[in-house]
Amino acid sequence: MKLTTLKLVTIVAEAVLQDQIIDGIQALGAKGFTLMSSEGQGSRGRRTGEIPGVNIRIETLVSTELAEKIISYISENYFEHYAVICFLTDAQVLRGEKYC
Amino acid sequence: MKLTTLKLVTIVAEAVLQDQIIDGIQALGAKGFTLMSSEGQGSRGRRTGEIPGVNIRIETLVSTELAEKIISYISENYFEHYAVICFLTDAQVLRGEKYC
Amino acid sequence: MKLTTLKLVTIVAEAVLQDQIIDGIQALGAKGFTLMSSEGQGSRGRRTGEIPGVNIRIETLVSTELAEKIISYISENYFEHYAVICFLTDAQVLRGEKYC
Repeated sequence: MKLTTLKLVTIVAEAVLQDQIIDGIQALGAKGFTLMSSEGQGSRGRRTGEIPGVNIRIETLVSTELAEKIISYISENYFEHYAVICFLTDAQVLRGEKYC
Repeated sequence: MKLTTLKLVTIVAEAVLQDQIIDGIQALGAKGFTLMSSEGQGSRGRRTGEIPGVNIRIETLVSTELAEKIISYISENYFEHYAVICFLTDAQVLRGEKYC
Repeated sequence: MKLTTLKLVTIVAEAVLQDQIIDGIQALGAKGFTLMSSEGQGSRGRRTGEIPGVNIRIETLVSTELAEKIISYISENYFEHYAVICFLTDAQVLRGEKYC
């Protein structure tokens, strides 16, 4: 079976950032994405009594090169002022050319 | 610590396919699954003005052999006519025999 | 690009266990988590006619050492009496020191 290894980029961010992050990753070249809602709490949010906030979780399957562009974009634009998480995992797909 | 490496199979598809995909992967031998709802947009769906559709995201932890059967099944039955994504990632578990 | 490889710990469990699992992984040292709701069916739940139950899916990005502590904690406290799944995947991040 001919599987291609791509990168799954996962971004978890405050819901208010949804549209600008989706626009940003599509402008960089991502051809599709999956969007889920989530709750969460990070190292910025551990004040006593705080309730976890509403977040979005975006996934996109891309080449390693594009994955690194996306993680740089997220880091440069959001890490300083927002509680955004971005991580890459290896994912194997059939027909990898669809994603590149 | 004795961890076993299995494959996590993730399938993202239109919600209308939920029951037939779950039946299909269980018939192939998957012993359990996790189901989430999501939205998404893929390379088939980038017409101007289109809103992202309601999708389901199914995960199942299986052996490598079964993972390859599932990705073939999804590819052969759905790739031509539906916007279905299927990818494999390595996942480490305790008590791997539960999943096989 | 300087990426650090961490472990993404994913836990899927009955919704009733949400608070105690979150408290447990935070007590072990996890600095943040993402929480989603899901449905699922596992090897314990395949009685005829049973409907899939409401589950939670918790993710946390941690060091390998902490990931092994978490998977042991989940195994020792929940595997015997609950339908809990816990698995580890490798995840690459920028600024890995935030998570450790």
